[in-house]
Amino acid sequence: SEKICAGLEIEDHCVQPAAFVSPPKWHLGHTTWFFETFCLTGEKPFSQDWSYIFNSYYEALGKRVAQDQRGHLSRPLLREINAYRNAVDEAISKRAKIEDEKWWKALEAGIHHEQQHQELLLMDIKYIFAKQTNQPSYLKTIREPDSQIEASWLSVDEGIYSVGARAETFIFDNETSQHKTYLAPFQIRSALTNNSEYLQFIEDGGYKRPEFWLSDGWQWAVDNKISHPLYWRSTNGEWSEYTLAGHGPLVKKSPVMHVSYYEADAFARWAGYRLPTEFEWEVAAKKYEDLSHAHLLDDLQDLARSRGTKSLSGSVWQWTASSYQAYPGFIPFKGAMSEYNAKFMSGQMVLRGGSAATPRSHYRQTYRNFYYPSQRWMFSGIRVAK
Amino acid sequence: SEKICAGLEIEDHCVQPAAFVSPPKWHLGHTTWFFETFCLTGEKPFSQDWSYIFNSYYEALGKRVAQDQRGHLSRPLLREINAYRNAVDEAISKRAKIEDEKWWKALEAGIHHEQQHQELLLMDIKYIFAKQTNQPSYLKTIREPDSQIEASWLSVDEGIYSVGARAETFIFDNETSQHKTYLAPFQIRSALTNNSEYLQFIEDGGYKRPEFWLSDGWQWAVDNKISHPLYWRSTNGEWSEYTLAGHGPLVKKSPVMHVSYYEADAFARWAGYRLPTEFEWEVAAKKYEDLSHAHLLDDLQDLARSRGTKSLSGSVWQWTASSYQAYPGFIPFKGAMSEYNAKFMSGQMVLRGGSAATPRSHYRQTYRNFYYPSQRWMFSGIRVAK
Amino acid sequence: SEKICAGLEIEDHCVQPAAFVSPPKWHLGHTTWFFETFCLTGEKPFSQDWSYIFNSYYEALGKRVAQDQRGHLSRPLLREINAYRNAVDEAISKRAKIEDEKWWKALEAGIHHEQQHQELLLMDIKYIFAKQTNQPSYLKTIREPDSQIEASWLSVDEGIYSVGARAETFIFDNETSQHKTYLAPFQIRSALTNNSEYLQFIEDGGYKRPEFWLSDGWQWAVDNKISHPLYWRSTNGEWSEYTLAGHGPLVKKSPVMHVSYYEADAFARWAGYRLPTEFEWEVAAKKYEDLSHAHLLDDLQDLARSRGTKSLSGSVWQWTASSYQAYPGFIPFKGAMSEYNAKFMSGQMVLRGGSAATPRSHYRQTYRNFYYPSQRWMFSGIRVAK
Amino acid sequence: SEKICAGLEIEDHCVQPAAFVSPPKWHLGHTTWFFETFCLTGEKPFSQDWSYIFNSYYEALGKRVAQDQRGHLSRPLLREINAYRNAVDEAISKRAKIEDEKWWKALEAGIHHEQQHQELLLMDIKYIFAKQTNQPSYLKTIREPDSQIEASWLSVDEGIYSVGARAETFIFDNETSQHKTYLAPFQIRSALTNNSEYLQFIEDGGYKRPEFWLSDGWQWAVDNKISHPLYWRSTNGEWSEYTLAGHGPLVKKSPVMHVSYYEADAFARWAGYRLPTEFEWEVAAKKYEDLSHAHLLDDLQDLARSRGTKSLSGSVWQWTASSYQAYPGFIPFKGAMSEYNAKFMSGQMVLRGGSAATPRSHYRQTYRNFYYPSQRWMFSGIRVAK
Repeated sequence: SEKICAGLEIEDHCVQPAAFVSPPKWHLGHTTWFFETFCLTGEKPFSQDWSYIFNSYYEALGKRVAQDQRGHLSRPLLREINAYRNAVDEAISKRAKIEDEKWWKALEAGIHHEQQHQELLLMDIKYIFAKQTNQPSYLKTIREPDSQIEASWLSVDEGIYSVGARAETFIFDNETSQHKTYLAPFQIRSALTNNSEYLQFIEDGGYKRPEFWLSDGWQWAVDNKISHPLYWRSTNGEWSEYTLAGHGPLVKKSPVMHVSYYEADAFARWAGYRLPTEFEWEVAAKKYEDLSHAHLLDDLQDLARSRGTKSLSGSVWQWTASSYQAYPGFIPFKGAMSEYNAKFMSGQMVLRGGSAATPRSHYRQTYRNFYYPSQRWMFSGIRVAK
Repeated sequence: SEKICAGLEIEDHCVQPAAFVSPPKWHLGHTTWFFETFCLTGEKPFSQDWSYIFNSYYEALGKRVAQDQRGHLSRPLLREINAYRNAVDEAISKRAKIEDEKWWKALEAGIHHEQQHQELLLMDIKYIFAKQTNQPSYLKTIREPDSQIEASWLSVDEGIYSVGARAETFIFDNETSQHKTYLAPFQIRSALTNNSEYLQFIEDGGYKRPEFWLSDGWQWAVDNKISHPLYWRSTNGEWSEYTLAGHGPLVKKSPVMHVSYYEADAFARWAGYRLPTEFEWEVAAKKYEDLSHAHLLDDLQDLARSRGTKSLSGSVWQWTASSYQAYPGFIPFKGAMSEYNAKFMSGQMVLRGGSAATPRSHYRQTYRNFYYPSQRWMFSGIRVAK
Repeated sequence: SEKICAGLEIEDHCVQPAAFVSPPKWHLGHTTWFFETFCLTGEKPFSQDWSYIFNSYYEALGKRVAQDQRGHLSRPLLREINAYRNAVDEAISKRAKIEDEKWWKALEAGIHHEQQHQELLLMDIKYIFAKQTNQPSYLKTIREPDSQIEASWLSVDEGIYSVGARAETFIFDNETSQHKTYLAPFQIRSALTNNSEYLQFIEDGGYKRPEFWLSDGWQWAVDNKISHPLYWRSTNGEWSEYTLAGHGPLVKKSPVMHVSYYEADAFARWAGYRLPTEFEWEVAAKKYEDLSHAHLLDDLQDLARSRGTKSLSGSVWQWTASSYQAYPGFIPFKGAMSEYNAKFMSGQMVLRGGSAATPRSHYRQTYRNFYYPSQRWMFSGIRVAK
Repeated sequence: SEKICAGLEIEDHCVQPAAFVSPPKWHLGHTTWFFETFCLTGEKPFSQDWSYIFNSYYEALGKRVAQDQRGHLSRPLLREINAYRNAVDEAISKRAKIEDEKWWKALEAGIHHEQQHQELLLMDIKYIFAKQTNQPSYLKTIREPDSQIEASWLSVDEGIYSVGARAETFIFDNETSQHKTYLAPFQIRSALTNNSEYLQFIEDGGYKRPEFWLSDGWQWAVDNKISHPLYWRSTNGEWSEYTLAGHGPLVKKSPVMHVSYYEADAFARWAGYRLPTEFEWEVAAKKYEDLSHAHLLDDLQDLARSRGTKSLSGSVWQWTASSYQAYPGFIPFKGAMSEYNAKFMSGQMVLRGGSAATPRSHYRQTYRNFYYPSQRWMFSGIRVAK
């Protein structure tokens, strides 16, 4: 996380240009608070105030600053948060000798939690930088997408399939229980929808024709005057896009990014296809390696290097037609951790896959990411099915 | 529809005390407009303005008055709308001699559409009357619930089941295609959750303990200061309820009514159970007649009589754990009718069954009703599963 | 009041198309409640509920229905309100024999209060009718304005003038105390700004040039997409206007009507003039009869007839540059009546004069009408000064 | 301005915890932009973007970032803004040799403008610091108020007085023209209302009794749950207050601070008095030196020292009963400067005097400060009249 933030100025750590964005320094404090809360139980808290400031949404852990007011806090200062990170790291290191399987499990959860926030940091930094009048670059360059695999239809037969995960390695509770599901035969596209294809949708009046849209989506597009993906811009008929490497011409072959579920769904309907369900996606992903994203950073070391010359392009999370709900036999985590995933099973849609900003060791074929259908500041894209 | 409105004063036909309620006279005009639009194609419209006024949400049929402003319209007058109804009825009667299967299908759809609005009328009348300072009665009495069936658990075996409907008789597009689904073994409660059980949830702090609630639901309850079902009231520790027969003591054995999905879900979690999926509900309903609601009015004649002395108690729609989305192989209706159901497949949850206000001939085991998880002015209740 | 409402259908009595409009039947009930409250003290209330329903804003008299929810109430029915009016009239008549100066004062206040609501009724009826898709007429015809007096500048000398009223006949508390004020010499226009002049402002880009506008006004115009007076409409470059006699071509010589303070102020600045202060207006009105409005209905009998063939055109209230605040030595009415005027002395501007909808016996040169600067559904117009 | 900000961390410069607060670094950039715009006309702008970012509200000078989004901007960085300040200072110094009265007038206006922002900086810093969970101190200590002058009534005779300013030294356009006004005899309190007196108002139920409040004010207090001045807090019945020296016990003899007009007006009514008009205040101030505030910092040098040990207590701006409107004969500044004061003459109330945060050389007896009646983050207090 610190490497991700290394390229930021102090000022960049403080701002919150939208309620759903958190200031980078809040992420740094929150992830450390998570370790302190779940791995340093019984010890004197680093600061009473900080549980109030860095608790994200755990009702069981007391009151907290309203999410949309995180950007109101100039204090604690960045250097105080970094000191907090060091102090908690040290205390964790001391405890790390004990033999207590539960403790190690909590530590592992804390690491996966921080990996999630590493992607959130990149989403939020992109949003913050794009909001600045001069739209600065975070990376020097973005790698052009590899000559993409030939787009084709991958077939999956009718059958009863096993989906979801078993807790052999670390998994989130929302991936359980592993269970059977019946799938009718279907086909899924080998390639992600790219900017060129999405542009055809726009040029065919996609954003002006209600027949392609869900009712809620149409209302959202009208109310918010939406007519293109989040970071696109049209100047004198030329399309350009803000990426982490700054503002530049739209790369036609790159996967379309930063679209909402409503847009993904409308595009698929316009194209004569549909979005896959999350189980179709998972079964196909297990059969065809191609669905896994090819452009994941090897690890955060790689990301750190990438701030020099490498890439943050490539794969995107893929909207599915499945709403985010409990699997059969779902058993939430225990204690305060029960609020980690379970209470969000309402109103959100599942995305599958992973993005170029997802740490490689965080990726799993059974992984369920979830967002509200109007959200699009995450690295979200489209893969169609029929 | 006219019989349902027969007990209203002109004033009662005009008001819209919430955005989701429509003034009764709007329902009367809208259902007739629907017939005019789909069954009198090619004829001179009764009034150019009225398509603007009575179009509910069909983008393909042009602009329309905003939903939350239907109650701003004093015109057309009730007597003008009734004249419209008669004129369209007459024109339909004339066309009814033609042999044109498509026309008869449209007519049938118009009838099912009006049946839906008959239930909406009763929901809206109840809401309107409850909002009045003196809370008038719509019916003279509500029948006490029959001594309820003994509550027990009904078992369904693991298996591949066929769900959804085939278009042999009239069905809505959202019930298609009939398709296979795999179900793990489960049990479903033979009886609806009743007021007595729900009261225990309240008395155990159900509305004050976030651990039972979805995050969106908790926020909804806090923001709207929700602490009981819509029409309940507590006075000096005594609970009472507004029904269509007026305000009276809470009947403990009656099914709990007018709860949101959030409340239904929180209740089920508190009770140690869960809500069934819509497919679990449908498979169980086919196996056990008891899930069908026993208290449906025989037909609207019966409702008319009931305005004297009979009942409007009994069954309620049952929230399921399934979000409202397209079935595999779903093919929407054609033309403007494609907007009837398909565009709402986002953000809403499925309810199954039917209520005492549902016309008996409108009831089907494959029927999918759908509302947003916060809504509760419909006759909605709870049946738990495990 | 009943004569004003005689041309309405029951439906027209019920609706509230904006928060600031009250349903006509509410006015009928409220004015009677006012008499009941202040002139039938000590008697058993006609209905406990009705004080809740018909109390407008008197904190001292208990809770009341929210102003923007008056249109949610279908009950009491119009015929019940009319019965209430008759019952209170009768009870008043019985008490009218007593010799109690305070009682007669209260009665007089009640009459002046109802006169205010008679104008409000006409404002609200106009707003309601204009909102209907077919924009029905309330009057058969509007009289064309008499050939207007030749517009000229009327001069007033520097001096110390006495303004405000002495309680010799009925006056409102906000007209007291009569006090001295120093005025520099000024000139005021003999004629009201007419539609022709206002049209020049529009055609000169008046609504698009921020330099003419107050900051709050510019924001208001941008936010609400304001580009002309409330009831004007432009179709293919032709301007028309809704009046109480229906929709018709804009009459160039008529006074411009239904403008906000922001618009009046911007117009005056564009024209190179300014609005008069309320004291300038009052002193000039005393000197020059022309400022008094010539087109006042003789009385409500006249209005009743006018529903056939006569007029409701003519004079308008005139925005002044004075905010509505207490005069030196102001003493509010006593008791609940203290809330009648005094508590509104914040954020509103004074209008002087009277309109064609103002009962003649309600007109006074010292009368202070007041509205928020963004409001314009009253009969408001412009008279400039320099 | 830089000295005022010297005690802030970089993080403190960036945040905007309320729409009406500006991030300190925005003030630093804006005041310099003002000099650049009005004193370096004809020169190449330092940055094209920065006019967009640092234009506060001048429509004539083009588009600008929305006021409530100033806190979304991490860029330009503080060090870039400081470089901007130096560059503009240098360019100004070069031009300072020219003999051009208009240029020197613009420079003088720029200095008075920056003085206003120096007070705004202190208001905003106080608000920002108070919002932090740990409520840091900006100053080491606050000086206890000097033993206050004995409170008494100061009398002013009836008469015609001259008010407003003549442009002999620098004045703002809103202070012109100097004109005559008639005043009835009145008395004004020699001392400001102090915390002890205000506490009596609270303890007498001041915030719970609508009879003391303007209607808008009561609504404001109810909607925002207001029950005490902005920075007061009650813990176990003990009142404390946040000052620039941190959180501490309420000092009873200090002037009450950070009250809205609504609160000032309600307090005065409760006390049996009223607020003075702005002309009463001005005439009394000219007669009695005591109205001028005694605790003004000598200059900003003094403030800089005060960050060590001195004071920021003392005087406060005093709400008057006068709405902020044009004086007779008012002539606005020319060009873009016309937007400086004139366009705000709507909806706001005049405050007179000055506060401990007002630079001494900025103070004038004819000075008109103005805020909306609900605002109270400025150093506002109460002086009553009768």
